This record gives sequence, structure tokens and C-alpha cells, in this order.
Amino acid sequence: MVSSVGEVSPQRMHFSTPLPLRSGASLRDYELVYETYGQLNADRSNAVLVCHALNASHHLAGTYAGQDRSEGWWDNLIGPGKPLDTERFFVIGINNPGSCFGSTGPMHPNPDTGRIYGADFPVVTVQDWVDAQARVLDALGITQLAAVLGGSLGGMQALDWSLRYPDRLRHCIAIATAPCLSAQNIAFNEVARRAIITDPDFHGGHFYEHGVMPKRGLRVARMIGHITYLSDDVMEQKFGRELRAAELGYSTQDIEFQIESYLRHQGDKFSEYFDANTYLLITRALDYFDPAKAFGGDLSRTFRSARCDYLLASFSTDWRFSPARSREIVKALLDNKLNVSYAEIDAPHGHDAFLLEDPRYHGVLRAYFNRIAHALPGA
Amino acid sequence: MVSSVGEVSPQRMHFSTPLPLRSGASLRDYELVYETYGQLNADRSNAVLVCHALNASHHLAGTYAGQDRSEGWWDNLIGPGKPLDTERFFVIGINNPGSCFGSTGPMHPNPDTGRIYGADFPVVTVQDWVDAQARVLDALGITQLAAVLGGSLGGMQALDWSLRYPDRLRHCIAIATAPCLSAQNIAFNEVARRAIITDPDFHGGHFYEHGVMPKRGLRVARMIGHITYLSDDVMEQKFGRELRAAELGYSTQDIEFQIESYLRHQGDKFSEYFDANTYLLITRALDYFDPAKAFGGDLSRTFRSARCDYLLASFSTDWRFSPARSREIVKALLDNKLNVSYAEIDAPHGHDAFLLEDPRYHGVLRAYFNRIAHALPGA
Repeated sequence: MVSSVGEVSPQRMHFSTPLPLRSGASLRDYELVYETYGQLNADRSNAVLVCHALNASHHLAGTYAGQDRSEGWWDNLIGPGKPLDTERFFVIGINNPGSCFGSTGPMHPNPDTGRIYGADFPVVTVQDWVDAQARVLDALGITQLAAVLGGSLGGMQALDWSLRYPDRLRHCIAIATAPCLSAQNIAFNEVARRAIITDPDFHGGHFYEHGVMPKRGLRVARMIGHITYLSDDVMEQKFGRELRAAELGYSTQDIEFQIESYLRHQGDKFSEYFDANTYLLITRALDYFDPAKAFGGDLSRTFRSARCDYLLASFSTDWRFSPARSREIVKALLDNKLNVSYAEIDAPHGHDAFLLEDPRYHGVLRAYFNRIAHALPGA
Repeated sequence: MVSSVGEVSPQRMHFSTPLPLRSGASLRDYELVYETYGQLNADRSNAVLVCHALNASHHLAGTYAGQDRSEGWWDNLIGPGKPLDTERFFVIGINNPGSCFGSTGPMHPNPDTGRIYGADFPVVTVQDWVDAQARVLDALGITQLAAVLGGSLGGMQALDWSLRYPDRLRHCIAIATAPCLSAQNIAFNEVARRAIITDPDFHGGHFYEHGVMPKRGLRVARMIGHITYLSDDVMEQKFGRELRAAELGYSTQDIEFQIESYLRHQGDKFSEYFDANTYLLITRALDYFDPAKAFGGDLSRTFRSARCDYLLASFSTDWRFSPARSREIVKALLDNKLNVSYAEIDAPHGHDAFLLEDPRYHGVLRAYFNRIAHALPGA
């Protein structure tokens, strides 16, 4: 029987010990929001950490009481009887610092000044997030994770776990990810950032005190992002050149094509809830992720410290993080004679495929988690 | 001997008869700027019209007296001894109405009101441009062109010539083009337009009277465009993850990567000279181009009216108008038993390749123009 984890509640954890960051700065007096699903077993060996990407949070699965359409962002994957089965695993979602979904971020007061952080929120990296997550696990008494799972930017966190905390996980599952951004990936991020930063309502990142939000910039940023998440094919299939009205209106400013209407709607929605400084921070964390940099760009040497088993998956039409980028990682893992499973899934949905319920994709994850579960005590 | 056409001067032509437009509106009392190179032969059979794309003009080749770096945008192709040899052909470049390079456009006064057109400049289509070009040729006494040549949006104009004025050209040369935009192409145009339109300095398209220009929007629009003109590969090769400074600065707003610096520079330059309303008009003309629409989307039926010979060329790394889009056209031409040559050129530069001097690409054009020249009287 497949079902939902049901109603869930986020929890908060306060940290008074400052978190040292890669930039040299540190984050002090911060809170992280997290959710857990399922039960931690007696020897604390069945915990799975799920890392989130840009527009997501600790709220992986289930719903919030009294809130319609409040399903977690990976609810199709996580729950009783689902591929990541909460009847066997204790699943943890942690909202990263700098986010706008509950953990300490740019919209909160800087304890040093009492003023809202805004653009003064320290730059955070994938490594900083992983360090922050490790502290939550320390507090929960979890020494070793059964697995760390993530897609896209979440996959980068999973990879970083396996590199810097090799004894703290047995499996790393990295979906639709890359060992670092390409120049084109950085370019798209930079255009999105410029749209936000040059919005007059951004006020150098201190817009909170002006009572405005740089929504124009956020809309454009989201529209750009959205194009890169979808494949050319799926856009063509869903929208093609379909018009909104029966006839052309001959206007440069009004909507003519359905794809325009869709993108504007996505941009509008996003600009209502997402924080502009968070957008900058998260895209920068993506730009900076490059574990091979310390090894002269040699990805094989980079993974010499790794010990866990790996599952990687990529999607044929993903042009943001194409299968070729996953294959780079697979090769580096094989060079180190690590156990690696790799699935290249023929799916039409582009990068977004990692969030969707494709039977082959979910079949791969189900089989892999079954394998992990069978090695648990009492299985 | 290969040389430049040398110093050239643009010419102007005034039209008092209104130009009827696809939108139902018309353009009255307008001027078009054009340049010509070489000599028209006695029977007026050696004229080649070159159509321009988004960021280009009538100034195809040669330089302007006293102006450094004023070479025409296709100077590598057009000149004495060059692939389009001005010792054999009379080459014509016409600036399309709505442009910001001299022909009547949104920055000029509307004769109906005396006020600067701004956003009231009528929406122009590829067909309207071709009609406007045909009037210039009428005035020059050119009944039939040896060829119409264009790349990208210019290629769409060349195709339209062959469809709607089948008796007025013997050859259609369409490079790096498409039979219509895909949903993804329209999506990128729409984001660029939103960046411009939502710039507070746009003032609904009437920014001229406010003494400002929506430079923020134009910068973002150009950055987006630029990413789509280059291939992922060439960006990786030219910039990769190269940093501007020796060390990371950990900043979301400052430049870290060279690709960011390059894109910002391209955006800044563009925003200094390009007109925001022209950007909207030209991207819309791209969106609207769809000759097969009147034939229920059947491209083969669309080309039933065509009579000329065709050369098409595409570039392997062009993801804006990929080789597959050119092949759609080639197939439709073959379905109509037309003479068609097609070259798919393995070039790393993406869409921009059509402007660059690649020996294989220029070799194809040289051979094709030689063939046209051999059929001219006295050849």
C-alpha cells in the first residue's frame, strides 16, 4: 500500500556556536528548520538525509494541517510504500541557511547589528550547507546516514557529503547533477542575478526596510530559470506556437503565445514568495561548487577520499545538467574502483524530470533503496 | 586579390505611398537607408539583396570615412574577390523599417501626431520588411535579383522573398535559419521583452520624452540573447570557470567569473546604442514568422509557390536554430522537386557561426556564388 506520510510539522533547532563559512565569515545565533518522516531504528542506522535545491525546502513530504496543496516537494517519492519508504527509513529534510523557507536567512535580523541582514547575509557554499546539516544530525544523535539523496543542487550536497564526511554515509544518491557548473550555467545564473540586482526596488539588497520587493527582477530571473529547467521538446509538445487568442493581436507587449502566458505566470507566482537575496545566494552556491578545484581540476583524484557506494541518475533531455556531466562523475568514481550504479533515463521533461514521477526513474530509486534496506539490521 | 569595398556612404530613399502592414496598420511618409556595393550590370541581372538580422543594418561591408572600426557586419563575406564578389555582383543592403540604424523607426516622429512614435510604431513582420525592400528595388529598377541572402532572421526574409515574390529572385540563400520559432525560441524572446518592458525607465515605450533609456532591461535582454548565440562548447572553451581575480571574493553582486565580465560588457555596450522599442519589434517579427501557418502547418505545401534555386546552411553547434530546423526546410523544398543545396557545417561557434569566417562555410558560399556568376551574361 502506497500512501502519504500524512500531516507533518516542521521543527526548529537553534545553534549558538557560530558556523564557520568558506568565505571566512561565520554565521552565529542561527536556526534551522527541518522535518522528519518515519522512525529512527534502534541502532540509528536507517536515516536518509534529503538535500534540497534552489526552490525547495525541508518540507519533503506530507501536508500541513489546514493548508490545501501543501504537499512536500518530493511527496511522490517519499512516504509509506513509496520508493523512499518511510516505513523502513527515517527521512530528514533540512532547510539550508540563507533560504527563505524558515531557516535563518537574509530576511532575518543580523545578531551583530539588530538590522535585517539583506545583502549582508554571508555568502554560503555547498560545503557550508553540508556542515550545517552535519550539526543537525549530531544533535539528532545520527552518526552515520544510510544515504544522502539530492537532485540538481541537492545532488551537489550529496556529493560533498561523500567527499568530506566519508564515514558518515553509506550511500550517496545524486540525481541530475554536475561536478561543477559550466560557463553557460554560470551565464544563465548571472543574467538572473543582474535582473534582480538592477531592479530599482532591490536597493542594494536592503529592500526590506523600504517596504518593497524587487519583483520585476525576480520574475525575469524565474522565467530564465524555468526555460533552462524544461527541455526544448517538452515546451514544444506542451505549448508549441499555440496562440492565446484566435487571431494575432500584433502587439509587442501583450501576450500572443501560450508559452508567454505560462512563463509570466511562473514568474509572477515566484516573485510573490521567493526572496531576492536568497536567489542570489543560492545561484552563487551553485556557481562556486567545484570540488575538483582543490585537485587541479582532476575529478578522479577528487574522489580518492570517497568510501561510500553511489547511485547516479540523469535524464536524456536535461540540457542544464546533461547526462554527460553525470558521466564525468561516474568515470571519476570508477577510476577509484568505487561501487557505482548509474541510470541514464530517457525522459522528455528536461532537468525538471528529477522531480517527476517517471516509472523507470522511480523504479531505479525503489530498487536501490530496497538494496539499502536489506542491509539494515532486522531486514 | 581579396580586398575591402573601401569607404562607403549610406543613401536614403523616401516613400510617400503608405506601406500596408500585416497588422492592418500602415506606415506612411517613411525613409529607408540602404547601401550598395559593386556595379549593376547592363541587363540589371547581377543584383544580390542581403537581409539583416536583429543587431545589424544596411551597412554590410566597407568602412565609413574617418570612423575607426566601422567595417560592415558582413565585411568578411562581401567585397572584391570575397565569396560574394562585388566585382561580379551588385550588392544591396537595406535597413528595415522599425530598426534603430537609420530607417524610420520608433525614435522618429509619427507623421500623424508629430510625437515620437515610441511604442506606437506599428508592429512590423518579416513580410512587411520584404514588401518594403521590394519597393526599394522597384525604385532602383531591379526587376529580378540574382539572389537574396540572409542569416538567422535575415534567412527568414530570404525565404519569404522566395515564397511571395517567386519571379523576382533566381536564388535564395538562407543560413542558420528556421521555418518558424520554437516555443523555446519564443520563450527566450519573451523574457528579454519582459526585462525591457518592466524596466521603470521604459515608460510604456515612451521613454524618449522622459530623457531616459531602459538600459537595465536592454542589458539583461542582450545577455540572454548572447547566451543563445554562443554554443555551450565555445563558452566553455573561451571562458570555462576562469576567475577574474586570483581568489574567490565570495560576493553575489561582484564579478567572480570571466564569463560574467564578458556578458556584462556585451550588455553594457548594447544598451548604449540599441533602441528598446526596436528590440521589441524585431523579436516580435521573429516570433510571428511562420509561413506554413496559412497552409495548416504543412511546410511542403507552403513551398509549392517557390520557383528559385536554394542554398541552405546550418551549423552543428547552433542550438538557437539547429540543423534540424534547416533540414525541415530542405525536406519541404525537395518535396517540391526544387533545386536545393544544403551544407551542415561542423563549427564550434553556435548561432554566431554565420557571421564568422570559417573556411568550409565561406567555401560553400563562394562556390555557390561562382555558380550564379557563371550564369550571368558575359560571364
